[in-house]
Amino acid sequence: MIDKVLAHIEANKDAHVSRLNDLLRIPSISTDADHKADMSKAADWVRKLFTDCGIAAEIVETPGHPCVIAEAGPADGPAVLIYGHYDVQPTGDLSLWSSPAFEPTVRDGAIYARGSADDKGQVLTHLFAAEAWMKVAGDLPVRVKFVVEGEEEIGSPNLEKVIRDHRDRLACDYVALSDTPQFDHDTPAITYGTKGMIYKELFITGPKQNLHSGSFGGTLTNPGNALAAIVASLRDGDNRVTIPGFYDNVRDLTNDERAAIKKLPFDEDGYRQSIDVPSLEGERGFSTLERKWARPTLDVNGMIGGFTDEGASTVIPAKMSGKMSMRIVPDQDPERISEAFDAAVRAACPPGVKLEIKTHASCSAYLGELDSPGMKAASAAIEAGFGKAPVFIREGGSLPILPLFKDVLGADSLMLGFCTPDCNAHGPDEYFRIDDLHRGTKTSACFMNLLAGAK
Amino acid sequence: MIDKVLAHIEANKDAHVSRLNDLLRIPSISTDADHKADMSKAADWVRKLFTDCGIAAEIVETPGHPCVIAEAGPADGPAVLIYGHYDVQPTGDLSLWSSPAFEPTVRDGAIYARGSADDKGQVLTHLFAAEAWMKVAGDLPVRVKFVVEGEEEIGSPNLEKVIRDHRDRLACDYVALSDTPQFDHDTPAITYGTKGMIYKELFITGPKQNLHSGSFGGTLTNPGNALAAIVASLRDGDNRVTIPGFYDNVRDLTNDERAAIKKLPFDEDGYRQSIDVPSLEGERGFSTLERKWARPTLDVNGMIGGFTDEGASTVIPAKMSGKMSMRIVPDQDPERISEAFDAAVRAACPPGVKLEIKTHASCSAYLGELDSPGMKAASAAIEAGFGKAPVFIREGGSLPILPLFKDVLGADSLMLGFCTPDCNAHGPDEYFRIDDLHRGTKTSACFMNLLAGAK
Repeated sequence: MIDKVLAHIEANKDAHVSRLNDLLRIPSISTDADHKADMSKAADWVRKLFTDCGIAAEIVETPGHPCVIAEAGPADGPAVLIYGHYDVQPTGDLSLWSSPAFEPTVRDGAIYARGSADDKGQVLTHLFAAEAWMKVAGDLPVRVKFVVEGEEEIGSPNLEKVIRDHRDRLACDYVALSDTPQFDHDTPAITYGTKGMIYKELFITGPKQNLHSGSFGGTLTNPGNALAAIVASLRDGDNRVTIPGFYDNVRDLTNDERAAIKKLPFDEDGYRQSIDVPSLEGERGFSTLERKWARPTLDVNGMIGGFTDEGASTVIPAKMSGKMSMRIVPDQDPERISEAFDAAVRAACPPGVKLEIKTHASCSAYLGELDSPGMKAASAAIEAGFGKAPVFIREGGSLPILPLFKDVLGADSLMLGFCTPDCNAHGPDEYFRIDDLHRGTKTSACFMNLLAGAK
Repeated sequence: MIDKVLAHIEANKDAHVSRLNDLLRIPSISTDADHKADMSKAADWVRKLFTDCGIAAEIVETPGHPCVIAEAGPADGPAVLIYGHYDVQPTGDLSLWSSPAFEPTVRDGAIYARGSADDKGQVLTHLFAAEAWMKVAGDLPVRVKFVVEGEEEIGSPNLEKVIRDHRDRLACDYVALSDTPQFDHDTPAITYGTKGMIYKELFITGPKQNLHSGSFGGTLTNPGNALAAIVASLRDGDNRVTIPGFYDNVRDLTNDERAAIKKLPFDEDGYRQSIDVPSLEGERGFSTLERKWARPTLDVNGMIGGFTDEGASTVIPAKMSGKMSMRIVPDQDPERISEAFDAAVRAACPPGVKLEIKTHASCSAYLGELDSPGMKAASAAIEAGFGKAPVFIREGGSLPILPLFKDVLGADSLMLGFCTPDCNAHGPDEYFRIDDLHRGTKTSACFMNLLAGAK
């Protein structure tokens, strides 16, 4: 039967591209309140894909954006929950895009559009695979539950309640998802660990309005200088975070992990060139991949305040704000790090200004098992779909839902990465290779098949 | 004759307000290339005021915005050059204005509009005074040369050439101008010193585009963290500038000056409340007025980069830029401080990013004589116009043209301040009191009269 399913997928390659493009045209930007209607539209698009091929699906409303839940396959045997998200990041400066962010454009065998890789293109591999099974076999080979949410890019504030509310219905042995990259263009990968994340925004308020920097300079604290002082105080010259207690619970890489990382075909200079920086930098004492996957970081995400137009206006800014986020690793506790951050920021804030700290998002890191039956099925499926065994890697990005699934459903997550690492997720010119859409779809079809015998 | 001139001014009070409003309606923002036509319009408005009352005037074109030069009065006896500017600062966030910035609105006896105090309202006092003399007496009582430029708010890049080109024609014993405030609402003032200014902009470039802070965090220098580190490194915890050699040539206040400052009716808490900050802060070891008038400062004027919209986008910014300016005092050399700043910024910039430094403006501080005949005439004129003798103060703002006049024309500058110190120059709701417009006009008329006998 799997051969027929794969043949069906092969025969529908062009249709899959065209249907992915339909979804990509919906600007489902979850960070932006103006796109509320697009969120519903995208959720409905996903629901319809399920119901059109005979998979029971429903839209679960939340206080934020809706979530699509679906289910099919035999009730006995193992169960897998396939997770993905239909929301996307903002576009950023549109002038940096080679083609419009929400008009999918094919160049050099890849689809360029916001969300093509993160995560619409990747989640559709699983939906197209399920659809192929339904059309060819009338059912799935294994019990599959689907959760496709609309709030991943804002930290999944309502997913926990949805999962808890539907805990019995969503019970599973594994969670599978594709929201991570391959290791490189020729090396498929399974990711077994992600970083956690804490996103903060600082609002610094000084005088009631912008003041003349000559007439008032030297008499009050400048919110711009204050923000710079605070941000700079959070890291030292070795790029280590200076927040007291920050490294207390950081789990060190094992010797096996360090050895495995060293063996990976990582092209350090190619990576440097791909992001076009003069040199790679980071915490002293660790290699680039070690820092990327297993060391906590603290980054400015944005700062704004004062006079930012063309020219030279001599003001002392009334306000200044800065967004920054920390990526944390096992076993740092987000709650504890969040509090330590706030305390460090307050301690570093000079007198004479008001400081407000907002926490936008917070989640734990995740580290899964490498030798479970589910992991073996996932690995064999990738080998079937891509013609090459995957490497096992970790990821610097955060998937807040992994610790949540572990906690509520008791299930480890299998992260089958189908996009390329330079896919420009969150940046301009995000893309997903058409080949990877097809190989991913075949992988998912095989994975369902292999998992059926894996318990 | 002076009585008739003052009576004429009194009779034209309303007309003066109405004509000032005409000029205020022209959005002559010199920092903004889009307002090129408004600059010509404002210059022409000023020229016409002169020629309509019989004062020879011409518009001198420059590579930037035009300058109006005019001249009248007897050829013998002392000569004074009256300087002012018709250009204004940008409006900043218009939502912070109580009424539109370029629709002058009268509230509580004051005209609210961008440029009302800085400097259109103040420069018009002198033009209205000259006009009154022309209309009543058919000539001015003393030789007066006028220079009204359009580039003060961008550091007067072309004024030096204009002054040098017209050096003989503009020869004078004193320069007089009104571009500084009174000491407080009830205390007129003559300013005898200003700070110099150096305005810099830093451009920090990291990766070729915004990157996912998870996938790439820890592997490259973040331009936001880099900017914060640079800015923070420029001052220490005592609010002293850390640039090597920065304080080398700072002229200390004399004991007389410190004593005079202490005697001024300065309401420290009233000042704090007027700008609405929790506490006044600045360089340790100096009083608020000492810091404001005689100690150099370094302020952030604006910073921008990365994700600055609503919400939480996890990017490492590709670029970050920061505008900052230093106010310098006698005898700091702008050239030397500018170079020291650049060197300190380069030294503080972490590896892994590209740094570009742009100098927008640079000028020296100025300190004039307190007991010259011109200063005495100015003081007596204010006493006549305001009914109260002025105090002698310094100013934290910069008037780049004062050292220029001293250098090219050999003339000291007399700064007769007619606006109030909380006039919101450069901020929203800039205003100029109608009373001060009239008192300033009378003062200027008396000043011309008194100066005629002052050589």
